Amino acid sequence: MPNLNFHPSGRHFLQIPGPSPVPDRILRAISYPTIDHRGPEFGALGRQVLAGIRKIFKTDQPVIIYPASGTGAWEAALSNTLSPGDNVLMFETGHFATLWKKMAESLGIKPEFLGQPGIEGWRRGVQADRIEARLRADPQHLIKAVCVVHNETSTGVTSNIAAVRKAIDAAGHPALLLVDTISGLASADYQHDAWGVDVTVSGSQKGLMLPPGLSFNAISAKAINASKSAKLPRSFWDWTEIIEMNKTGYWPYTPSTNLLYGLAEALDMIFEEGLENVFSRHQRLAEACRRAVRAWGLEIQCADPAVYSPVLTGVMMPDGIDADAVRRTIYERFDMSLGAGLGKMKGRMFRIGHLGDCNDLTLMATLAGCEMGLKLSGVPVKASGVSAAMDYLASHTVPLVVKAAA
Amino acid sequence: MPNLNFHPSGRHFLQIPGPSPVPDRILRAISYPTIDHRGPEFGALGRQVLAGIRKIFKTDQPVIIYPASGTGAWEAALSNTLSPGDNVLMFETGHFATLWKKMAESLGIKPEFLGQPGIEGWRRGVQADRIEARLRADPQHLIKAVCVVHNETSTGVTSNIAAVRKAIDAAGHPALLLVDTISGLASADYQHDAWGVDVTVSGSQKGLMLPPGLSFNAISAKAINASKSAKLPRSFWDWTEIIEMNKTGYWPYTPSTNLLYGLAEALDMIFEEGLENVFSRHQRLAEACRRAVRAWGLEIQCADPAVYSPVLTGVMMPDGIDADAVRRTIYERFDMSLGAGLGKMKGRMFRIGHLGDCNDLTLMATLAGCEMGLKLSGVPVKASGVSAAMDYLASHTVPLVVKAAA
Amino acid sequence: MPNLNFHPSGRHFLQIPGPSPVPDRILRAISYPTIDHRGPEFGALGRQVLAGIRKIFKTDQPVIIYPASGTGAWEAALSNTLSPGDNVLMFETGHFATLWKKMAESLGIKPEFLGQPGIEGWRRGVQADRIEARLRADPQHLIKAVCVVHNETSTGVTSNIAAVRKAIDAAGHPALLLVDTISGLASADYQHDAWGVDVTVSGSQKGLMLPPGLSFNAISAKAINASKSAKLPRSFWDWTEIIEMNKTGYWPYTPSTNLLYGLAEALDMIFEEGLENVFSRHQRLAEACRRAVRAWGLEIQCADPAVYSPVLTGVMMPDGIDADAVRRTIYERFDMSLGAGLGKMKGRMFRIGHLGDCNDLTLMATLAGCEMGLKLSGVPVKASGVSAAMDYLASHTVPLVVKAAA
Amino acid sequence: MPNLNFHPSGRHFLQIPGPSPVPDRILRAISYPTIDHRGPEFGALGRQVLAGIRKIFKTDQPVIIYPASGTGAWEAALSNTLSPGDNVLMFETGHFATLWKKMAESLGIKPEFLGQPGIEGWRRGVQADRIEARLRADPQHLIKAVCVVHNETSTGVTSNIAAVRKAIDAAGHPALLLVDTISGLASADYQHDAWGVDVTVSGSQKGLMLPPGLSFNAISAKAINASKSAKLPRSFWDWTEIIEMNKTGYWPYTPSTNLLYGLAEALDMIFEEGLENVFSRHQRLAEACRRAVRAWGLEIQCADPAVYSPVLTGVMMPDGIDADAVRRTIYERFDMSLGAGLGKMKGRMFRIGHLGDCNDLTLMATLAGCEMGLKLSGVPVKASGVSAAMDYLASHTVPLVVKAAA
Repeated sequence: MPNLNFHPSGRHFLQIPGPSPVPDRILRAISYPTIDHRGPEFGALGRQVLAGIRKIFKTDQPVIIYPASGTGAWEAALSNTLSPGDNVLMFETGHFATLWKKMAESLGIKPEFLGQPGIEGWRRGVQADRIEARLRADPQHLIKAVCVVHNETSTGVTSNIAAVRKAIDAAGHPALLLVDTISGLASADYQHDAWGVDVTVSGSQKGLMLPPGLSFNAISAKAINASKSAKLPRSFWDWTEIIEMNKTGYWPYTPSTNLLYGLAEALDMIFEEGLENVFSRHQRLAEACRRAVRAWGLEIQCADPAVYSPVLTGVMMPDGIDADAVRRTIYERFDMSLGAGLGKMKGRMFRIGHLGDCNDLTLMATLAGCEMGLKLSGVPVKASGVSAAMDYLASHTVPLVVKAAA
Repeated sequence: MPNLNFHPSGRHFLQIPGPSPVPDRILRAISYPTIDHRGPEFGALGRQVLAGIRKIFKTDQPVIIYPASGTGAWEAALSNTLSPGDNVLMFETGHFATLWKKMAESLGIKPEFLGQPGIEGWRRGVQADRIEARLRADPQHLIKAVCVVHNETSTGVTSNIAAVRKAIDAAGHPALLLVDTISGLASADYQHDAWGVDVTVSGSQKGLMLPPGLSFNAISAKAINASKSAKLPRSFWDWTEIIEMNKTGYWPYTPSTNLLYGLAEALDMIFEEGLENVFSRHQRLAEACRRAVRAWGLEIQCADPAVYSPVLTGVMMPDGIDADAVRRTIYERFDMSLGAGLGKMKGRMFRIGHLGDCNDLTLMATLAGCEMGLKLSGVPVKASGVSAAMDYLASHTVPLVVKAAA
Repeated sequence: MPNLNFHPSGRHFLQIPGPSPVPDRILRAISYPTIDHRGPEFGALGRQVLAGIRKIFKTDQPVIIYPASGTGAWEAALSNTLSPGDNVLMFETGHFATLWKKMAESLGIKPEFLGQPGIEGWRRGVQADRIEARLRADPQHLIKAVCVVHNETSTGVTSNIAAVRKAIDAAGHPALLLVDTISGLASADYQHDAWGVDVTVSGSQKGLMLPPGLSFNAISAKAINASKSAKLPRSFWDWTEIIEMNKTGYWPYTPSTNLLYGLAEALDMIFEEGLENVFSRHQRLAEACRRAVRAWGLEIQCADPAVYSPVLTGVMMPDGIDADAVRRTIYERFDMSLGAGLGKMKGRMFRIGHLGDCNDLTLMATLAGCEMGLKLSGVPVKASGVSAAMDYLASHTVPLVVKAAA
Repeated sequence: MPNLNFHPSGRHFLQIPGPSPVPDRILRAISYPTIDHRGPEFGALGRQVLAGIRKIFKTDQPVIIYPASGTGAWEAALSNTLSPGDNVLMFETGHFATLWKKMAESLGIKPEFLGQPGIEGWRRGVQADRIEARLRADPQHLIKAVCVVHNETSTGVTSNIAAVRKAIDAAGHPALLLVDTISGLASADYQHDAWGVDVTVSGSQKGLMLPPGLSFNAISAKAINASKSAKLPRSFWDWTEIIEMNKTGYWPYTPSTNLLYGLAEALDMIFEEGLENVFSRHQRLAEACRRAVRAWGLEIQCADPAVYSPVLTGVMMPDGIDADAVRRTIYERFDMSLGAGLGKMKGRMFRIGHLGDCNDLTLMATLAGCEMGLKLSGVPVKASGVSAAMDYLASHTVPLVVKAAA
């Protein structure tokens, strides 16, 4: 195996918005010996992770776990519920919404893309009122599904999914609601059942703190019903047989055993901390990060404070600055990986991930790396970002769950 | 994470025909910290595994690595090369050939299934002459592809793929040749280019000694050409963008980073031993296993010695014996997992895996577990199977690659 | 790090009488990140292992855990209880008893060595009656301690320690009883308190299934009392400060943190199986091993069935056979390590370890490797050893603790 | 095994002056399966680590590796070279020098302790001129050894060992020079041969980045000669047999196999970076740390800039502040471990470790944790420490060894 640390010493800081840093506990869990996927041990594992993952999605309905990356779960959501030529309504929140739309087209679905010209739409969340208006203009119910991204990884905007549900209901429209929360799950609050989502798509390598390689479809009774008449060809992604076999903790084909070990461990970790504590930790770190950005005198990519993402923060560069050159300097000098601007934002921003297994000092290291790297790159910033974040964190400490010495 | 060893002490013997036991080196490799899939380190990893995996398939053409299990790679082979309603010719070698056919139907393809009644066809390999005859009877070339299984995991039969190629050529037929060697690759010799295969499907959890979660399509120029007009909807499985991005060592979507670490390590291990040495090791262990079966007075499931599998051996039970009860006894008393009879063979046989990271003493432990378990289960066998295997191994030792003390 | 598997494929069989094979659970435990040995987490770890290890020694008194190998714990036992020039009575059970005597001499103690000429004494256990007689002949109580080996790793003899205690008491002699059970602990029953042992010496790499690097002194009130006047210079090994600091779970100097992780895991594993179940498992495997040896027509090194070791079996070679050449053949051809004959037994025997994380099929692999290796080496043996062991194991299966599928 | 992370999320920052954070590569190396310590693989490992460790000590003479913690290597240095009642000259540089003196007394050696009253001597290094003067006053050469600490872990002072050698030579005195560089080795430059040291003592858990459990004696021909007449009782620590067996890569007793795996990996890592690069990295990080301390308006414990330690920085608290309360706040709120004040310095300072596998951002996280913790604890500090460190690091970046994308 090649030596994959190109810096000679110390820990790499992986501060992209996913894959997030995988905790030691999980890395060790995935290195347990692979077992028979048809044996009794596997059934015990399967039942445990299938029960636990529902709590993460806040659903009482089945959650499908695919031995595939998140993109596959996008395809699964579409191909289980739709037929060739179906119209769907999508909303351009950023690069990943755009990719999902492109996928829909590849599969023979006809997406209509709501949004705004230029990059403006990428700086705000889903506009539920526009969805409502569009659905009201579809009295024949030609639109079969509304597809939105909950946490747009390319920008740092977390849209209000409950509002989308309300919009659909207000329009009295039967369209399914399909939501991508690949990067939101287990970092930002998410409520599959309460928000009335029909298919929620997610992945392992973000809030769940796992390596990439697992992906999810949380589904509703309405979605299952839709799957019975959906005509897109499907086999690998088909829900039916998986749901049936999952009842006893098994899968119809070979599941990704070692990543499921990791999932079991991740669920243990999240429930030990408490899911709501996980969410508030992310909110607090994200606020500290934003205070640093503002103190540098830079602009936060998300223009609407109501939809700031607790997962990542997009940082806009002043005109004339190549964000990728800044990122490269930070990578080379300080051994930290940041997220690039994608699609329309290429070169204009970088993204700081503060999701998953993150804490105060990891964030401070991250912000110090940014501040030094910005300075070294000649970006005109004020040197008070790190201080601003420290001020916030130190004055907003929360009682950590420190075990008493037994 | 749940405690997944239901036996209190000692190593579990995982002797199913896959997932095969994952060596320590690989388990440790997959537990390295996850890195940025867009960073320089990842590119180095990607280029290394993409170059190495071609040598395993014996091809100079692209090999696609999917972050998915083997079943997905079946779907990829079909959906990249075929259009809805296309006719394909398949051959019933066993349970997995049957599942592949079922998948083809789900995707809207029309498979014609050559085979024999009852279980007889499951005990022999692909009959190339019947394929030739059928193709000659298709002067209009309605058949778009011939799909066969190289190593049938459900039975222990390794078909002659070169003969199938010859049959297609002899018929002067333009059908593509699609081959599943999920359980054969890196255990039984396989030559994608020399045998003129258009798409070879494989997976990680067999001869490559990895956990499940990676799968492969080795492809030909003819297959790539076919993909340009193939009309099955596809996005996740689509080759085009993957091939393009693989040129620099990256993937269009998030790859399964930690399993790729394992793949890099597996390739190192295989090349250290030597691929041809790997093949002859499997042949030798398989012969020892078959001698044990015969000495017990039991029948080998594969009825044609020319196509005995080096990967696994199917053991037929006498009438009136429930093979699954025997397997359960062996599991409970001796902490060993064996493969069940599948489909038509359910309850009538068990399968011994001797693939991947296997050696003489592991095989002997396996055969001892079988012999004791058969006896405990009341199966009338002669107690000379283990002896027969020892006789063979001891009189056919090969010079092991033992390093001289440096 | 160098590649340390000189055989290209499959698992190495480490069947020496220690270090024994370390289970995956323990290997992973020792790879947890090192923590502050003065912090709260460490205290929790320390208290847990200090409480657990007492149960293994069956004592309510302190057990000292040294960050050192077993030889160090020998020295600790002597230097904490004795003064320069003190007389001690030792018993020549084999190579390790001899080494302990040599150590005593190096430290300025005067050992008297009971035993028998030639190798005869190495084939039987401690003769308690001779100890009693010798002590009776010491009315002035010049002998300060009796030192014996419980499980003699060089031969496979497990002496009766309770009988030694009884002998000392019968003689009305105040000598301390010092016992080495480095290779016996957690494989053979051992009762520090009930047997009235004053200092028990042990190590990590045998029945405790850990790597080498931890060693132990279980002590009595009488031993602590003796330490107050013992005059051998000592600092690192001194009990006083360790006992004091252990009360809160800490050590006076830096302990071997990562091996203590492993100890915590090992204790969990042993208590899950049940300590008495561990002992009977070893007895059963040892009996199967001995039946194989006898069926080969070879002699068991231990000549007294009452003191057969459950840990290892010494196998005598016929005259003219070099046992080390046999071992080398087995190592080279079958990738298995066996123990060499030591001291007086060099070249005349090999030792089969069946301790720690061993089970039926691992033992069968071991015996098959021996049988094939003996044959390849030209040793005239009957080929029925493996069969004899299988007969025994299959007719003496025990209800394994198999968890019901939950 | 107990869950040993008392904070629910994110990485713990272990910034004590040892054990230092163990890199993932080393943690994985120590989890390789334990092998036969008498087999060929072990010999290859032994020869590799024995050759490599000499380069770290900069010596061509033998280096002894003990399966024990550093305190044991102190004892080894004394007991191999001295006899009961021997006079040695020691220098009070801090807590560990004091403990070494205490050990010497326990072993029956008569140490004379040079130093200064109060804590003043703890803030400066060894005064070579006083050693010279004292040796000149010993015309009968009653003083058998001079014992000094190179890097005093309790304070952050790195004494000039070459000057001590020069002082001994200037006095024309034959005393041996014994040096403790437990915390200095592989972080601060050290030259066993060039500096004319007779015994150098070190340990694994500091600059070598390993868990505790290995310790070292680098020795000179003069020391070996002295060992021949040294009369302190010794066995476990005795050099003679170890040196003899090390010639082929083995040890007389069971070595700490798994920690030796870690040592092999650590040596690889250090040589990949380059030993001199390791030293300059430590100097640079230490300077940044000191700038932060000064900017806070706090005093650095080491009062002489010529002997600032590159390993750790001691931070003095203003009068009336309990340093341990500050440490506790930082541990509880920010999940970071700092070193306590020891001995005379208890409660008056804390120690920041910046040794081993440390880099810029880890240091910045550390300093941010200190700055926030000081503030939260009500210590009157200026909030510009982190900024000062960033200014230094950003203006003194060094070309990191970043591999070109191959």
